[in-house]
Amino acid sequence: VKSCTVAVDAMGGDRAPGEIVAGALLAVDQLGVHATLVGREEEVAPLLPSPMPAGVSVMDARDVIAMDDEPASAVRKKKDSSIVRSAQAVRDGAADAMVSAGNTGAAMAAALLRMGRVKGVARPAIAVVLPVPGHGHQILVDAGATTDVSPEWLEQFARMGREYARVRLEIDEPSVGLLSIGEEPGKGDELRKAAYPLLAEVPGFVGNVEGRDFMHAGTADVVVTDGFTGNVALKSLEGALRSLATLVFRVFESSPEAKAAGDVVMPMLLEAAEAYDPDLTGGAVLLGVNGVCVISHGASSETAIVKAMGVAADCVAADVPGLVREAVASAG
Amino acid sequence: VKSCTVAVDAMGGDRAPGEIVAGALLAVDQLGVHATLVGREEEVAPLLPSPMPAGVSVMDARDVIAMDDEPASAVRKKKDSSIVRSAQAVRDGAADAMVSAGNTGAAMAAALLRMGRVKGVARPAIAVVLPVPGHGHQILVDAGATTDVSPEWLEQFARMGREYARVRLEIDEPSVGLLSIGEEPGKGDELRKAAYPLLAEVPGFVGNVEGRDFMHAGTADVVVTDGFTGNVALKSLEGALRSLATLVFRVFESSPEAKAAGDVVMPMLLEAAEAYDPDLTGGAVLLGVNGVCVISHGASSETAIVKAMGVAADCVAADVPGLVREAVASAG
Repeated sequence: VKSCTVAVDAMGGDRAPGEIVAGALLAVDQLGVHATLVGREEEVAPLLPSPMPAGVSVMDARDVIAMDDEPASAVRKKKDSSIVRSAQAVRDGAADAMVSAGNTGAAMAAALLRMGRVKGVARPAIAVVLPVPGHGHQILVDAGATTDVSPEWLEQFARMGREYARVRLEIDEPSVGLLSIGEEPGKGDELRKAAYPLLAEVPGFVGNVEGRDFMHAGTADVVVTDGFTGNVALKSLEGALRSLATLVFRVFESSPEAKAAGDVVMPMLLEAAEAYDPDLTGGAVLLGVNGVCVISHGASSETAIVKAMGVAADCVAADVPGLVREAVASAG
Repeated sequence: VKSCTVAVDAMGGDRAPGEIVAGALLAVDQLGVHATLVGREEEVAPLLPSPMPAGVSVMDARDVIAMDDEPASAVRKKKDSSIVRSAQAVRDGAADAMVSAGNTGAAMAAALLRMGRVKGVARPAIAVVLPVPGHGHQILVDAGATTDVSPEWLEQFARMGREYARVRLEIDEPSVGLLSIGEEPGKGDELRKAAYPLLAEVPGFVGNVEGRDFMHAGTADVVVTDGFTGNVALKSLEGALRSLATLVFRVFESSPEAKAAGDVVMPMLLEAAEAYDPDLTGGAVLLGVNGVCVISHGASSETAIVKAMGVAADCVAADVPGLVREAVASAG
């Protein structure tokens, strides 16, 4: 069995290249994948042990796309950037997958431009994994790739998300819900009303789900929406969690008695709250492109990179692009 | 000064009529408002003390719109329902405002049909108050009244929301943000891109805000979006809070040591978490109709009804419909 090679954007992310390279080295050691570190050789090489471990290589790329660069034009202009070169390595077969913690829009654009769309797919979608504490995980698709969609594209997102859930959540027949503002079929805006009968043809469809079904068991394994709504929902979830967590921490600092209680219970709370740690969810996957592209969050630590590379390897092993192609084709 | 009379839908809500009537009586006692309890006389009258307190009256209405009735047809068919009669009381001048914890869609439809739109307003919008723990509150508009909107309607929502924030948050010059998926002006879907330059004309406009800005200080006092996205965001916030709260409670029950720590700190946590209690935020207000309509959540307790009636009285005193008319007219 040929080991999977992951092109890792060594320059992308708030903590690049240090944490990225460290994560890639760990992944090679722990997961048995190969890593091609893409970025400025003179910045990446000094971070590597000597002799270079087996399975690690460096691919020089002179440009860097900044976190706040405008994605489309950055990808067009910076052809020798670590993000674009990573995507190109997948297209050329030099790597089986790419991982980036850099500019999300640029990673999407580079993957789309260099790898191209899967045959039959109208638009790509980002799938993110949400925790359902005590029960497992849930997938939200699209979390921000395609903001303006047609009902037909939502149906494709559902089919793509379902294939991904099979691989990522290890569920044979994932349930699929349409994110709306009421459970009844007629509820929602014009887009949702038009999409509902199309999604009803997707295996596992359970009808509309609502914002309050996120992170809760027994609703849907895959929640389908447009990239605008999905991104707003995802960040709203983050905002609420951060707001309540801040409040809890503040209470534990409010008095000596509270502090003492915190000494007992805080380690347990932090352990339980690991379910929400973005470093541990393994990044988002761009579905609908001809290759595996995993996007990790901007503040990724080495742990986040290990997880993202693990997800990338799983997607390669399962051939997610091939599953997506079949699922979309079967929709006729 | 004539006291404000609030028509209270005595039959609406999961805990009606008991909690609703109890709340109305408390509000009359505590706030000095008058309450007209609208509902089945034989169900409402037995809940009232004898002699009837000053400022309390009953308006008989034979029908009840259930929580799961289809709003538009229920309002059309059940003309003698407590919701429709409450809205009619405001139109006829028998009451200055209405409060309902019943079917939200029906309350909106009844208010819109009976009171009519404020001159110049294209579509109504629901404004909800969100907590910013430790800092105050934030207003989200539209939280679900109008799901499919034009850029111009978003501009109106911004102007209406700003007037409401003045009254409700007691801020002279509230800041206004457009909910989008990136801070830069060009970020968002086609609707947001088209709305941005229009909102830039609204006083206090600070640009785009994101989902993670909810419940956090220093972003925007008023967050503007369409009713679909707003409802999804609101329920996502609820879902995340509930998910994390469940996890925290579970930790405190996980061992005797954790239980002991919980005995110390749980009362403080619950007190701090009151910021998130929907009973204490005073309900949502339907902006853009010719009258004051406050919608309280379905599980409203008597406390929620007191708060909602207080909000209704404040909106009447400040003449929110008049402020909305002027704000929309000033937009030219």
